Amino acid sequence: MFTHTMEIDIEFGDCDPAGIVYFPNFFRFFDNGTAHLFAAALGIRKREWTSRFGILGIPVVDVNAVFKSPSRFGDRVSIESTVTSMGRTSFEVKHRLVNAGTLAVEGGETRVWIARDPDKPEKLRPVPIPDEVRRALGHEVTDG
Amino acid sequence: MFTHTMEIDIEFGDCDPAGIVYFPNFFRFFDNGTAHLFAAALGIRKREWTSRFGILGIPVVDVNAVFKSPSRFGDRVSIESTVTSMGRTSFEVKHRLVNAGTLAVEGGETRVWIARDPDKPEKLRPVPIPDEVRRALGHEVTDG
Amino acid sequence: MFTHTMEIDIEFGDCDPAGIVYFPNFFRFFDNGTAHLFAAALGIRKREWTSRFGILGIPVVDVNAVFKSPSRFGDRVSIESTVTSMGRTSFEVKHRLVNAGTLAVEGGETRVWIARDPDKPEKLRPVPIPDEVRRALGHEVTDG
Amino acid sequence: MFTHTMEIDIEFGDCDPAGIVYFPNFFRFFDNGTAHLFAAALGIRKREWTSRFGILGIPVVDVNAVFKSPSRFGDRVSIESTVTSMGRTSFEVKHRLVNAGTLAVEGGETRVWIARDPDKPEKLRPVPIPDEVRRALGHEVTDG
Repeated sequence: MFTHTMEIDIEFGDCDPAGIVYFPNFFRFFDNGTAHLFAAALGIRKREWTSRFGILGIPVVDVNAVFKSPSRFGDRVSIESTVTSMGRTSFEVKHRLVNAGTLAVEGGETRVWIARDPDKPEKLRPVPIPDEVRRALGHEVTDG
Repeated sequence: MFTHTMEIDIEFGDCDPAGIVYFPNFFRFFDNGTAHLFAAALGIRKREWTSRFGILGIPVVDVNAVFKSPSRFGDRVSIESTVTSMGRTSFEVKHRLVNAGTLAVEGGETRVWIARDPDKPEKLRPVPIPDEVRRALGHEVTDG
Repeated sequence: MFTHTMEIDIEFGDCDPAGIVYFPNFFRFFDNGTAHLFAAALGIRKREWTSRFGILGIPVVDVNAVFKSPSRFGDRVSIESTVTSMGRTSFEVKHRLVNAGTLAVEGGETRVWIARDPDKPEKLRPVPIPDEVRRALGHEVTDG
Repeated sequence: MFTHTMEIDIEFGDCDPAGIVYFPNFFRFFDNGTAHLFAAALGIRKREWTSRFGILGIPVVDVNAVFKSPSRFGDRVSIESTVTSMGRTSFEVKHRLVNAGTLAVEGGETRVWIARDPDKPEKLRPVPIPDEVRRALGHEVTDG
C-alpha cells in the first residue's frame, strides 16, 4: 500500500481557547491528506485527477477520529495517509497524525468514487474505481 | 436605507487561544450578514435571489474591519448590516457588531453585481443593479 | 434522556466547491450542539458551567459521523443532541442533523469530564460527573 | 525591510461554492504569514517569541484586503509578508498573495505589541516594541 506523508504547521487560528487544535480542523487536515495522497500516487495535480477519470469527486460516506494527545500552536506535525482497502466503488483511508514522534490522532474515512449517471446527468452514482487508480494506491486489481 | 439585524452566539470554535473570536471569523459573520440582509430586503430565501436576478453572485472586491473590543465564547452579539451606497454595478455594505450594547467591530465591504457575459459565457462581468434591488435596500433609483 | 434541538442556517461559507456543506463543518455544528445541550439542561449560559463545576472542559476522546444526504447553502436544518450514556467520568453524545424532514447526518462523540489534578495543577485528569449534571441530562444517579 | 515568503496549497476546503477561495480564509493565511514572518525574522519558533519578549501577543486593530483575481483549489500560491512601518507600540504589516506570477490579493494589518499591565495584571496595555524586534524586521531603532 502507498502511504503519503505531509508535514503541516499548527497555526494559531487552528487552535481553540483551550490552546489546542480545535478538533474539527483535524478532519480538514485529513481531507487535505487524502487529496495529496491521490495527487502523489497518481502523479498529477490534485484538481486534475477528477477530470482525468471523469468523476465528480470522492465524497466521504462516514468518518471517525480518535484523539490521543493534543497538538498546539507552533507544533510541526506529520500526517500519514493510506488507502487501506478498496471495494468495487468505495474505499477506506486511514490517517495518522504524528506529533514529536507520538501518534496524536488517528482518523478514518470511507469514500466513494462518484460520477454523473450518463442516463440522468443530474443524478450522481458510484462507479467502479479504475485499475490504474487501484495500482497507484498499492492495491490488487480485481478480476472482471 | 434598509438595515438588517441578526443575532448570533459566539461559539467555542469561533475563538482562539487568546479566548476571543479569531478575527477572520468576523468576515464570515459579516458575509453571512450580507446574505441575510439581501434575503430580508428582497423577501426571498437567500440562495434564490441569484437565480431570480440572473446573476452569479455578489463577490467582494475589497473588505476591511476595525476591532474595538473583543468578543468571547458564550457572548450573544448582534450584527447590523446596511447597504450604505450603490453605484451602477457595485455597492458598499457596512456591518456593526454590537456586544452587550458596545460597538465591538465595524466592517466594510465593496461588492459587485456579477453575471455571465452573454457573448462569452465563460467570462464574468459587472452588470447594472436592478431597480427592484435598489428600492428594496432603500436606495434611489438612478435615471437612465 | 434530555434532547436539545437547535436550528441553524447553512451559510455560503459552510459549503465547498461541490456546493454542499464541507464535512468538517458538521463537527463544528455538533460541538456547538453539545455546548447548547449542556447550557439548556443545566439552565446556565454555556461558558458558566465549566466554572460552576470546577472543570476545565469536556474534551472529545473520539468522534464519528455518517453522511446520508447533502445539505446546501440556504437550507435551514435542525440538530438534535442527546447524551445517550454516562459512565463515571465519560459520556456519549449523539447528534442527528435533520434537513427538510430527512436525517442527513448522524454524529457521535465520546467526551470526558476533565479537571486539574489538585496535587499537580499542571496535569489534567478525568473526574466523576456530578449527580446534578447526570439528572439534568436525564440519566440515573449512580450509587456511591 | 525584511520580507518573508511562504508557499501554501489552496485546499478544497478553503474554497466556496463559487469554486474559489472563500475570502475570510485569506485573513487566516495572512495571519499565518505574520506569525511566520516574526518567527523567521527573530530566528525562533513562533510560539516562543511571545514568552521571550514578555508579551501576550500582537492582536490586530484593523485589517483590510483587496481582491484582484480569484485563487482556486489546487493552486500553489506564495504569500509575501513585510512589516512596512513601526510606531512606538504598533506596526503595519502588508501581505501580497501571488498566484502564478500575478498579484491576486493585497492585505494590510495594524497590530499592537501588548503586555499585561504590571500594576493591574488583569489589564492589557500596549508596550514599546523592543529594539531587537525593530532591527530584526528591518526598521530603524528610535531614539529614546
